[in-house]
Amino acid sequence: MKKILIMNGPNLNLTGLREPLVYGGKTLSEINDGIAEQAARSGLETEFFQSNCEGEIIGALHSAPDRFDGVILNAGAYTHYSYAIRDAIAAISCPVVEVHMSNIHAREEFRRNSVIAPVCAGQICGFGAQGYILALTALAAMYTA
Amino acid sequence: MKKILIMNGPNLNLTGLREPLVYGGKTLSEINDGIAEQAARSGLETEFFQSNCEGEIIGALHSAPDRFDGVILNAGAYTHYSYAIRDAIAAISCPVVEVHMSNIHAREEFRRNSVIAPVCAGQICGFGAQGYILALTALAAMYTA
Amino acid sequence: MKKILIMNGPNLNLTGLREPLVYGGKTLSEINDGIAEQAARSGLETEFFQSNCEGEIIGALHSAPDRFDGVILNAGAYTHYSYAIRDAIAAISCPVVEVHMSNIHAREEFRRNSVIAPVCAGQICGFGAQGYILALTALAAMYTA
Amino acid sequence: MKKILIMNGPNLNLTGLREPLVYGGKTLSEINDGIAEQAARSGLETEFFQSNCEGEIIGALHSAPDRFDGVILNAGAYTHYSYAIRDAIAAISCPVVEVHMSNIHAREEFRRNSVIAPVCAGQICGFGAQGYILALTALAAMYTA
Amino acid sequence: MKKILIMNGPNLNLTGLREPLVYGGKTLSEINDGIAEQAARSGLETEFFQSNCEGEIIGALHSAPDRFDGVILNAGAYTHYSYAIRDAIAAISCPVVEVHMSNIHAREEFRRNSVIAPVCAGQICGFGAQGYILALTALAAMYTA
Amino acid sequence: MKKILIMNGPNLNLTGLREPLVYGGKTLSEINDGIAEQAARSGLETEFFQSNCEGEIIGALHSAPDRFDGVILNAGAYTHYSYAIRDAIAAISCPVVEVHMSNIHAREEFRRNSVIAPVCAGQICGFGAQGYILALTALAAMYTA
Amino acid sequence: MKKILIMNGPNLNLTGLREPLVYGGKTLSEINDGIAEQAARSGLETEFFQSNCEGEIIGALHSAPDRFDGVILNAGAYTHYSYAIRDAIAAISCPVVEVHMSNIHAREEFRRNSVIAPVCAGQICGFGAQGYILALTALAAMYTA
Amino acid sequence: MKKILIMNGPNLNLTGLREPLVYGGKTLSEINDGIAEQAARSGLETEFFQSNCEGEIIGALHSAPDRFDGVILNAGAYTHYSYAIRDAIAAISCPVVEVHMSNIHAREEFRRNSVIAPVCAGQICGFGAQGYILALTALAAMYTA
Amino acid sequence: MKKILIMNGPNLNLTGLREPLVYGGKTLSEINDGIAEQAARSGLETEFFQSNCEGEIIGALHSAPDRFDGVILNAGAYTHYSYAIRDAIAAISCPVVEVHMSNIHAREEFRRNSVIAPVCAGQICGFGAQGYILALTALAAMYTA
Amino acid sequence: MKKILIMNGPNLNLTGLREPLVYGGKTLSEINDGIAEQAARSGLETEFFQSNCEGEIIGALHSAPDRFDGVILNAGAYTHYSYAIRDAIAAISCPVVEVHMSNIHAREEFRRNSVIAPVCAGQICGFGAQGYILALTALAAMYTA
Amino acid sequence: MKKILIMNGPNLNLTGLREPLVYGGKTLSEINDGIAEQAARSGLETEFFQSNCEGEIIGALHSAPDRFDGVILNAGAYTHYSYAIRDAIAAISCPVVEVHMSNIHAREEFRRNSVIAPVCAGQICGFGAQGYILALTALAAMYTA
Amino acid sequence: MKKILIMNGPNLNLTGLREPLVYGGKTLSEINDGIAEQAARSGLETEFFQSNCEGEIIGALHSAPDRFDGVILNAGAYTHYSYAIRDAIAAISCPVVEVHMSNIHAREEFRRNSVIAPVCAGQICGFGAQGYILALTALAAMYTA
Repeated sequence: MKKILIMNGPNLNLTGLREPLVYGGKTLSEINDGIAEQAARSGLETEFFQSNCEGEIIGALHSAPDRFDGVILNAGAYTHYSYAIRDAIAAISCPVVEVHMSNIHAREEFRRNSVIAPVCAGQICGFGAQGYILALTALAAMYTA
Repeated sequence: MKKILIMNGPNLNLTGLREPLVYGGKTLSEINDGIAEQAARSGLETEFFQSNCEGEIIGALHSAPDRFDGVILNAGAYTHYSYAIRDAIAAISCPVVEVHMSNIHAREEFRRNSVIAPVCAGQICGFGAQGYILALTALAAMYTA
Repeated sequence: MKKILIMNGPNLNLTGLREPLVYGGKTLSEINDGIAEQAARSGLETEFFQSNCEGEIIGALHSAPDRFDGVILNAGAYTHYSYAIRDAIAAISCPVVEVHMSNIHAREEFRRNSVIAPVCAGQICGFGAQGYILALTALAAMYTA
Repeated sequence: MKKILIMNGPNLNLTGLREPLVYGGKTLSEINDGIAEQAARSGLETEFFQSNCEGEIIGALHSAPDRFDGVILNAGAYTHYSYAIRDAIAAISCPVVEVHMSNIHAREEFRRNSVIAPVCAGQICGFGAQGYILALTALAAMYTA
Repeated sequence: MKKILIMNGPNLNLTGLREPLVYGGKTLSEINDGIAEQAARSGLETEFFQSNCEGEIIGALHSAPDRFDGVILNAGAYTHYSYAIRDAIAAISCPVVEVHMSNIHAREEFRRNSVIAPVCAGQICGFGAQGYILALTALAAMYTA
Repeated sequence: MKKILIMNGPNLNLTGLREPLVYGGKTLSEINDGIAEQAARSGLETEFFQSNCEGEIIGALHSAPDRFDGVILNAGAYTHYSYAIRDAIAAISCPVVEVHMSNIHAREEFRRNSVIAPVCAGQICGFGAQGYILALTALAAMYTA
Repeated sequence: MKKILIMNGPNLNLTGLREPLVYGGKTLSEINDGIAEQAARSGLETEFFQSNCEGEIIGALHSAPDRFDGVILNAGAYTHYSYAIRDAIAAISCPVVEVHMSNIHAREEFRRNSVIAPVCAGQICGFGAQGYILALTALAAMYTA
Repeated sequence: MKKILIMNGPNLNLTGLREPLVYGGKTLSEINDGIAEQAARSGLETEFFQSNCEGEIIGALHSAPDRFDGVILNAGAYTHYSYAIRDAIAAISCPVVEVHMSNIHAREEFRRNSVIAPVCAGQICGFGAQGYILALTALAAMYTA
Repeated sequence: MKKILIMNGPNLNLTGLREPLVYGGKTLSEINDGIAEQAARSGLETEFFQSNCEGEIIGALHSAPDRFDGVILNAGAYTHYSYAIRDAIAAISCPVVEVHMSNIHAREEFRRNSVIAPVCAGQICGFGAQGYILALTALAAMYTA
Repeated sequence: MKKILIMNGPNLNLTGLREPLVYGGKTLSEINDGIAEQAARSGLETEFFQSNCEGEIIGALHSAPDRFDGVILNAGAYTHYSYAIRDAIAAISCPVVEVHMSNIHAREEFRRNSVIAPVCAGQICGFGAQGYILALTALAAMYTA
Repeated sequence: MKKILIMNGPNLNLTGLREPLVYGGKTLSEINDGIAEQAARSGLETEFFQSNCEGEIIGALHSAPDRFDGVILNAGAYTHYSYAIRDAIAAISCPVVEVHMSNIHAREEFRRNSVIAPVCAGQICGFGAQGYILALTALAAMYTA
Repeated sequence: MKKILIMNGPNLNLTGLREPLVYGGKTLSEINDGIAEQAARSGLETEFFQSNCEGEIIGALHSAPDRFDGVILNAGAYTHYSYAIRDAIAAISCPVVEVHMSNIHAREEFRRNSVIAPVCAGQICGFGAQGYILALTALAAMYTA
């Protein structure tokens, strides 16, 4: 059974707690429950990780290949400048799928550039919490390809 | 039953016929068959359209809302400069999901900018022909949200 | 009697049919009727052309000098990148007046640059459908100057 | 009866006196006479103001709404950098139409950008002194819209 | 007793008279009364100056050191391009504190750059009319430092 | 009684310990004592936080609204690139005032841009440790406005 | 016997008909006759294609390898922005030689960049209609290399 | 006898009065006396004008050709952004020589660009008050050329 | 005996463990052993520190001068954007030598800029693990200079 | 009989001696022999010049018109920055044809700009040593035009 | 008696020989005679040097201080990119005055930037051969200042 | 025994002769003696070359591989723009180590970019004359690797 790590970066712990109009009404924990449920239905195991700290995200990426077959990463604002996270993704062997709940290409100019995109398998954005599920499906399809 | 239009832009008619290493081994027609099959399983109807002509793509987008509940669009290279297609997407009422088979963010600089992204519902790229299936799923989730 | 060709580019066929708040409540056909009426009053003959296709707009410009004394052109989004339309305007002998219904200088950054402006006689923007009438008046004044 | 203020900025007092090839052969005073005449025919009252001084132009804009229903402004070279005039236009309630006698989009690069355009009702350029008449017509149409 | 000159640049004479939503409900005169009152309480004398004219602001800055111990300057839109005012500030010996009622860093791109900032003692923005009081306090603290 | 959190970012723990010419002669602890004293006099309660770690600053911002009525933030060099801190500020409900001891607009080019400024209430810079006191005053004025 | 397709893009149908000073005095048809004649002398067969439509040019490129051993392409203004034509050239197996009658490097800034150049075999510009003959020679040399 | 107008722009009235290290120890009046003396020796008549106001400088340039055979202009900081002064220089018939006391090319980046340079006869900078004398000599040579 | 701190930043803990082709075959620990051995031979004491966390690197730099005579820093990807680490280096009194195992000037564009370089003593890059030894030698030479 | 000078710039003396994969297997001398032979067949005389020194290339261009009817110039890397060679070409009366063996538009960004192109008659690139022959043909055609 | 070296860079040996409309009708030798004559009248000795070679110009600058009290340098096109000549000027102790016969600020964009200007004493341009005489006068004034 | 060529570019012949504060107190010849001595101790033979001429440096690089096993190159200001030297380095087979005595990354903006860096083995800067010794060590380590 394939095991997927779902990583969320800075500020995503606030999802659903504050500013529901921006971040949606579901908490990160509720979103994670939905992902786990759907994953189970697709025969995938999931684990969840959230951190506001760039260094911890890097560490979690480093140890991911030992326990996981793939990573789904919403790096929050680090997406736009963390070349250190980019290097961590490039250094590990398992595929990383980039997810953003909002359509980052329709927001402020600085959010349109993802420095991690060139080293990820692909990017899914604009579909809210559903984006994580789509990423799961994408990873599942890779394993059977 | 929801009906989805899958549109492919310039050069995508060559998919699978030439340069299999770049475009994958399946023809566009084979890819479309796979999409239709999966759509049927999800209770969605599909129709397919391909054109190398910017004006025809605009025309097809204009008439889409009358017959379709959503559009999946791989605009090929027009993605990077066709503000006219962008305006067409912005003018119509049904959601348009942007798909790219390759991860455009990992290719030449000019391919990293999508002028249509700000008016699409979301973007999925890097997952090959599977991207169209993910887009179908994303649209399906929108209808039930 | 002077004869004027009023050309409209991509997406302008939707005027008045969708998004009345953005495009105004009148259809392109109603706008054209108003232009023709006003032209008749000023002793000018008019003909109308709309296309979403860059190539057709170029073709129409090529044949304009044989039948018309001037062109009023709203090139839609092609305004911002079609150097091919620019070349067509530069190649023909009759004056071309650039019209935009909205004030393009007050919108997104990419709409502030018109690649066709340097080869047009002048630019009128921000006055809605009235802009075409002003362009007619401007052309009429040129003929009597 | 609607009353319009026609404002001309720096160097426009030289119109027709020097360099007739560039500025045309009519003096500003002759141009103004023509505008007043045409305005009278259209049932509009006009008043004229010219200054080379940014501060005076700002002051005239401030007091315009008390006595006028609209302003036609050729801000000369201030067009390209006077954010102070832009702020004055944005602060007043009556519409301001931007006019340039030459087609500024066909001249030096620095003349292609108008910092006041985003807060004006619209822009008319390239039609010589006729541009002021077109602006009058545009304002008249606004009052009856 | 220290004496402070409070200078306001272009369009600030309109404060409170027009567009109360943007500029706040108090007139410049009312704001000045509040500043004078607060200054008196802090043992500071104040004088007020407003001009829409770049040259007059420069002149006022030139003569400031003879009569004042400090200047509080809200240069309005001149902030963004008047290198002449910058040179005047750099040439005089008394400290100049830059104030903006709005948070200029949260507005249009062109408002984010202050060409006078590098030669001012400091910058205070975003606190409405209260910003002038804070500037007074800052100057007072400088005199006692 | 209103309670304010004074946050200092990377390297500010060195204030007064090294390079007194650059950072001033007072230690951060002495500066904080001065702030607390002044706050008490103004009927405000204060608490202090310093961290070199972006993630910890984000965490402290997240929990601020539960215990504080306002935040004064000197984000040090993170000011210039931490979009993650920007997102944290934007996500919380209490006002954040940006403070810099030096006039960042008079230093190296890269220090002139603050990525957090657009989501802060206002910015105060150039007044040394006095800047924190001014920020306190600004917050106090907001509560009574 | 090798067969070469000579393709001309937008506005090149006007060659020789209008603006002889700019485009030279020979019509496209006369130029083509000269090319065919020279080709025959070199033992090459030629066919000619002209279109103002980006989509048709793409289509013609797609079908070229089935009937031709090489393509000579003057893409007109599409040269400067048609990434779709670039993709079509990159996708086909026969060599494409880029020709411009004028020296595009000596004209307006926007004409100095060719987005198709990186995927063409080579570029010849500045030699008028003679450029097509040189391209023929270049292709002939490739076949015998 | 040729008559030359020596114009000085904003802040140059302070020369020698403040900041002798930057502006030199001579006052503008002393500098002007030296220029007049040298001019007399070369058989040239001189007149002097200084203003901090852009509009007044423009006005003085407009009336210069009626009474003067040449202008020596140190436009101070207006040099770097006053397209209005540039237009005034371009509009008048007598030659204008641009002078700067400091070497503007060796100072801040923004001082390296002169928007008036392209319409002046020539530029002399870096030689202090001597620059005005050199400009006189240059004009004298033009009259005898 | 001089004591040197060898600091490695994000992802350098992976050296030799993964991607030996990119990072070389030796682990960081093996590299460090080699450095220590060579240092001993040169009469230098060494200590080693690695962290993926920007804040920890800043902290280690702060405390370095108390225990070390110099620092050798490979800041990994933080090199390209961490102005906070730059400030930490600038704030401490002992020399910091910048080392990169690869030639960063021969890699992606973003790796060519080091924001810490202007405050380091010097930069050594392109010599693999040997670079640390060269940096040791450079520091040793500084102490005896 | 027309006489042509074939000039080669820096590093082209290495052609065929080193890196045959990059520079082709023929030496410059062998290439020149081929050119001379072909020229003879076309009734043209040739002479050859190679230098790594910018100044010598300029000198050779200066004296070219006295002995030659045309120049074929491969300026090597000087192509991208030698405005001095550009000025030399512009100053002489005989036509200069720019040749590059590789397709410079398909290489590194800095090789895509030719500062000499705007003053050359035309540019031929991408056809290896054959490019010189094509340039000969182009010059021959100019003489008979 | 002060001795001045007049240096001319690439292509200036052609002055007066070719393109009299651009370079004027006098040869460099005739210009030099005029300079020597004028210098003698002002009690200055002169020597002349011209080279097309960057390295020779650098060498001549190196040895200048041993024999000359000042240098007048027209570096031709090297002005715009030769940082090596800039370094040579910066390294020598005698003043260097930059001269250009044409007004470089009124020509192509690339000619507006002088990389040597920041290390020269001053710049004189736009006065033809007279510029060298003005530079002589400027140097003479420096020696007596 | 390995033999190394130490090459110095423009202006480096002045080292120690002028401006000791900038260039250090040792002459180039003294620096070279130190290098030779150290090289001998490490069992390396050295030879020295200096030229101000780009073309001579290129020539020396071309012939280096026949007599040397490595090159140490301080290209002076050519570092920042000589693509011709870059091509020469890329064309030869022996390793070239780039050395700068000053930390070029801590100086003027234009000195931060090295166009030769991408084709050198590595870069060492900021350590004065010691940099050449470090480069020797780096080369020695390469030979034994």
